[in-house]
Amino acid sequence: MAGKESSSVPSTPLLKDELDIVIPTIRNLDFLEMWRPFFQQYHLIIVQDGDPSKTIKVPEGFDYELYNRNDINRILGPKANCISFKDSACRCFGYMVSKKKYIYTIDDDCFVAKDPSGKEINALEQHIKNLLSPSTPYFFNTLYDPYQVGADFVRGYPFSLREGAPTAVSHGLWLNIPDYDAPTQLVKPRERNTRYVDAVLTIPKGTLFPMCGMNLAFNRELIGPAMYFGLMGDGQPIGRYDDMWAGWCTKVICDHLGLGVKTGLPYIWHSKASNPFVNLKKEYKGIFWQEELIPFFQSVALPKDCTSVQKCYIELSKQVREKLAKIDPYFTKLADAMVTWIEAWDELNPSGAAPGVANGTAK
Amino acid sequence: MAGKESSSVPSTPLLKDELDIVIPTIRNLDFLEMWRPFFQQYHLIIVQDGDPSKTIKVPEGFDYELYNRNDINRILGPKANCISFKDSACRCFGYMVSKKKYIYTIDDDCFVAKDPSGKEINALEQHIKNLLSPSTPYFFNTLYDPYQVGADFVRGYPFSLREGAPTAVSHGLWLNIPDYDAPTQLVKPRERNTRYVDAVLTIPKGTLFPMCGMNLAFNRELIGPAMYFGLMGDGQPIGRYDDMWAGWCTKVICDHLGLGVKTGLPYIWHSKASNPFVNLKKEYKGIFWQEELIPFFQSVALPKDCTSVQKCYIELSKQVREKLAKIDPYFTKLADAMVTWIEAWDELNPSGAAPGVANGTAK
Repeated sequence: MAGKESSSVPSTPLLKDELDIVIPTIRNLDFLEMWRPFFQQYHLIIVQDGDPSKTIKVPEGFDYELYNRNDINRILGPKANCISFKDSACRCFGYMVSKKKYIYTIDDDCFVAKDPSGKEINALEQHIKNLLSPSTPYFFNTLYDPYQVGADFVRGYPFSLREGAPTAVSHGLWLNIPDYDAPTQLVKPRERNTRYVDAVLTIPKGTLFPMCGMNLAFNRELIGPAMYFGLMGDGQPIGRYDDMWAGWCTKVICDHLGLGVKTGLPYIWHSKASNPFVNLKKEYKGIFWQEELIPFFQSVALPKDCTSVQKCYIELSKQVREKLAKIDPYFTKLADAMVTWIEAWDELNPSGAAPGVANGTAK
Repeated sequence: MAGKESSSVPSTPLLKDELDIVIPTIRNLDFLEMWRPFFQQYHLIIVQDGDPSKTIKVPEGFDYELYNRNDINRILGPKANCISFKDSACRCFGYMVSKKKYIYTIDDDCFVAKDPSGKEINALEQHIKNLLSPSTPYFFNTLYDPYQVGADFVRGYPFSLREGAPTAVSHGLWLNIPDYDAPTQLVKPRERNTRYVDAVLTIPKGTLFPMCGMNLAFNRELIGPAMYFGLMGDGQPIGRYDDMWAGWCTKVICDHLGLGVKTGLPYIWHSKASNPFVNLKKEYKGIFWQEELIPFFQSVALPKDCTSVQKCYIELSKQVREKLAKIDPYFTKLADAMVTWIEAWDELNPSGAAPGVANGTAK
């Protein structure tokens, strides 16, 4: 299978040794077969959710390390309580143990999509292009990404802003099953996304967006510590807001630090809608809470002395504790976990030190 | 020619009696032949620029009124000095004399574009759809316009924001010759826009954009008085910033009044690049001034008692006078013209009165 497609893949793909692919899963990773031409030369970090005694099968020929709950508990000790269990939010453990500059994370129900010409889309390559070219958060360019071949800044775009800002996040989209919430799934059970929008654009400074973790890449050095997926799943009153939480925190911190967030290309093929009834149960509280969270994030101000992602994130945790605890005691717990997450991050990623040792089940 | 295409055009097109098409020109309007199936049932307002003794030929069968400089001087008297001469900025006179709720304005070097399937694009119909559906200025929807068929709000989009905001402006794009400034034209003389991006999106609140007047529609009742294209061309130190100026003023006022601005579809086919050397001469000062104008518009705050477009615009003229006059005496003249424009607008559009009489050369 790899034969035909791989002809279009350069023999040494972009950022081969600088990027890890993080996959949270509870099942055998057969979906990787389809991604083989695009992923095989990269290193994978698999975060096994659920029962740690279960064996996850990974197709032959992939270079990976795998962490189950026992590994997470062993590596983080008491700090492991900041990593969610029985929820794909556990993926952020992979961001923490990676030693690479870039992360791509993808769900195991996501397949290779085709562009309108029928060509298979190398999603990872497009994400890398997005991350390696600047963003334009301070002024909107009507022809979308001005750094793409065949595009530029249009008349009226201030010249002083054309250098752009470093890109921290590349948010990719989904053909077939759109990323809808439970109410929308219930109302539109048959809706499929067939619209291929050939654009990448920067989410302007000051604007929040719903960041989906299904097909997401980021610069770990620039923004990694903000990519905490929160407390979801087992023992928590909420699910399916893990990536949203990470997105809101990340966007606010990117805006403060002058970093860019892009959305648009690449598409993946999202194969299967999750159960809307199960989703409704998970999302239920989030639907209410979100109405207060958005105004909170829209008005967050970070002080000038927050010059690193870690400092921003600790400051954000304080504001969460102060301003959101009144919604539900959950937010006090979450604020604690945000602090624990940063402590654990710094422990595994001592600044200036040589790459730390991550004792996973490396294979 | 009309026969074939018109089969896909409904016999009574959308908003037939509620929309005027405004065309600034210095030449015969042969380009209308190509637009016949889409425009013929609408009323045209032609603003003839340059020598008023010249006769502009309009193809048979179109319903139009035409205003030349003599008409403008006669109708506005001394206030006519707010309408530019020898510059397509004169088009805004057409917005003022229209009595309709909606305006579509298009340049006479813009032809019907084709979508990727080869179908001719009814640009006006798409603009109308954009204007008649809400905007989403307060939160970014990653699947673009959620009101389009086959799309919706994605997971994580706050439910309280899904009603959207009324749409005031629909900014369309251009295939073939992109709308570049003179320096970019000089550097990339052969660049053509071939990317058809199948999306409409709302420019978020607080974000400015470069509004091009080539292919633009708006709700005149909601935002008309802000669509002043400034002082450009004959006797002025600047050109080619008419639509930009209107766009910055309009966006700031839309943000203040809770109105939405969309960009994206529809495309027109822009046939001919203007001369980059001539353009450089016109833009020269704008390139410098713009660097101060953008921070000005980014920080404009309109007081709460500015509850109408007119009040907002008069307030904006005061701030232009106060804060931009230091750049160049031109901005004092412009601030005066902004006030004159609103006076003229109100004179021709007495609120609550029956439609006024516009004494053009109606045919």
